[in-house]
Amino acid sequence: MKEAVLRLLKKNRGAYVSGEEICKSLQVTRTAIWKHIQALREDGYEIEARPRVGYQLTGTPDRLNPEEIREGLSTRIMGQNKIFYYSTISSTNKIAQEEGQRGCAEGTLVVAEEQTGGRGRLGRVWSSPRYKGIFLSLVLRPLVNPAQVAQVTMVASVALAMAIRTETGVVAGIKWPNDLLAHGKKVCGISADLNAEMDRVNYLVLGAGINANQQPEDFPVELRDTATSLKIETGRRVDRAKLTRACLESFEHWYTLWLDGGFGTVLSSWKEMSVSLNCPVRIHTLNKSWEGWAEDIDVDGALLLRLPNGEMQRLVSGEVSLRLT
Amino acid sequence: MKEAVLRLLKKNRGAYVSGEEICKSLQVTRTAIWKHIQALREDGYEIEARPRVGYQLTGTPDRLNPEEIREGLSTRIMGQNKIFYYSTISSTNKIAQEEGQRGCAEGTLVVAEEQTGGRGRLGRVWSSPRYKGIFLSLVLRPLVNPAQVAQVTMVASVALAMAIRTETGVVAGIKWPNDLLAHGKKVCGISADLNAEMDRVNYLVLGAGINANQQPEDFPVELRDTATSLKIETGRRVDRAKLTRACLESFEHWYTLWLDGGFGTVLSSWKEMSVSLNCPVRIHTLNKSWEGWAEDIDVDGALLLRLPNGEMQRLVSGEVSLRLT
Repeated sequence: MKEAVLRLLKKNRGAYVSGEEICKSLQVTRTAIWKHIQALREDGYEIEARPRVGYQLTGTPDRLNPEEIREGLSTRIMGQNKIFYYSTISSTNKIAQEEGQRGCAEGTLVVAEEQTGGRGRLGRVWSSPRYKGIFLSLVLRPLVNPAQVAQVTMVASVALAMAIRTETGVVAGIKWPNDLLAHGKKVCGISADLNAEMDRVNYLVLGAGINANQQPEDFPVELRDTATSLKIETGRRVDRAKLTRACLESFEHWYTLWLDGGFGTVLSSWKEMSVSLNCPVRIHTLNKSWEGWAEDIDVDGALLLRLPNGEMQRLVSGEVSLRLT
Repeated sequence: MKEAVLRLLKKNRGAYVSGEEICKSLQVTRTAIWKHIQALREDGYEIEARPRVGYQLTGTPDRLNPEEIREGLSTRIMGQNKIFYYSTISSTNKIAQEEGQRGCAEGTLVVAEEQTGGRGRLGRVWSSPRYKGIFLSLVLRPLVNPAQVAQVTMVASVALAMAIRTETGVVAGIKWPNDLLAHGKKVCGISADLNAEMDRVNYLVLGAGINANQQPEDFPVELRDTATSLKIETGRRVDRAKLTRACLESFEHWYTLWLDGGFGTVLSSWKEMSVSLNCPVRIHTLNKSWEGWAEDIDVDGALLLRLPNGEMQRLVSGEVSLRLT
């Protein structure tokens, strides 16, 4: 109902809507409307109320709440089911995993304005001041086996890089397996949590942390050399809700393409956008470090690393450092 | 304490142990001992009590309770942590997953005498009359990435086939990826449930269902042509607790070998024991059926299927039917 009131006010942006009109079209009492107006104000919406005239929306907060995300969202699945919204949360992936376990539908979305327990790959802490980043997790249920799951994060890398390019003009390159870089600095991290049997995925939680409106001082000192934000790159504030919609739409497009047509199309786009192919790299895996030439990506997403002795090493996961030669 | 009383009685098998002796060596009251004796009787132990003489163990039930499994178990990890024991449970894997989620140590074991909600691969129901089969799940925390997990079930296939051969003389062959067959009929099924991030496994639950003492009539009609038990194969009753120990010991051996030395050793043993290599097969995957010649197993456990048109197809999971030519 709060959402319906907001929709009415938005439709009449720049003008007053009378209390009577709202009452009629939503079939609620004046008191109920007043309560919803108050709730919207608490959410950060600026609403002017004039006696005997009505209400006018004069300011929309920079928020990732369901109302803002859903406004004009053109997906069929992603974000069209439940949206769980938190102003602060330890980890959106954790919440999404719990919902996945409970059997929620594909496309269920968890969003947060701040993430306190967020981890990057290999368990690293990921910085996240409130209202500056975008933290979201999607519950997916692809009919694939666990070994194909690395492909989903590559699908997401392509999709999010595309959305970022279109929305902000920032040309984000992909660093294998799933970081997005702008001018060599991390602007988006993608992670996945998997619950599976041998033959099939039960659910998969795809998480993304996008550095949208951070200033350099918003990053912890140890990350300042390696992290950037879209605002730092462009000098312009990002409309986070709009970018979130673009990400959901782009991801749905590429995810569907992958499910229907296999990894081929995605892989060739991934390669085009890659900044960690055909160059010398150092790669840290769970228990070993490798150096070599990043020669190609295998059909299943594995990195093919040409070792100094000429042998080819297949790596399915790891942390890449681009070696400056 | 109940376990300590049982150990004392077992140590003195064939003789009476006086109440006084038990009291002294365990530092408990006569009343406490009586309670433990009663509890043991409820568990199926036959214990004679003679006034002024003492207690004697005259019969041990065919049970998979922690006391029976631990007696003489020579592992370091598997089954040495907590053992969760159920006379009937929907699924041991489910319980083990919950414990895994709670952070239990590696080697935590869940055993059941009967499994009502057991599923085989691809969600099939798996038959399990009480006290006849062996149903166990182990929580594992290998430092590997999700793509390597198929290897664990292959490690388990080799380990359990070996244990079954040693304990019962039944030469169980492995059908890719992880069924054990005796004379072409299923005698053991192995499954795995996985919880992982992109780069590493959080926990993995390895489950095994062994047909130990079932008679043909214990299987549902639709399984009688395709399932057998160790008792049917040998004509002899299996000591289920002893076989369980052998499985845990054998698995620990092969699992350690795999962690330390990689998949090579395991793979060559797997190939030797395979009954689904170098033969024509039909393979059902999640969304497709394949026919061809099962030519080899890849280093990561994938089946290499030679298609009629000469092409090689890599399959990471699926259900194999051996084609009779």
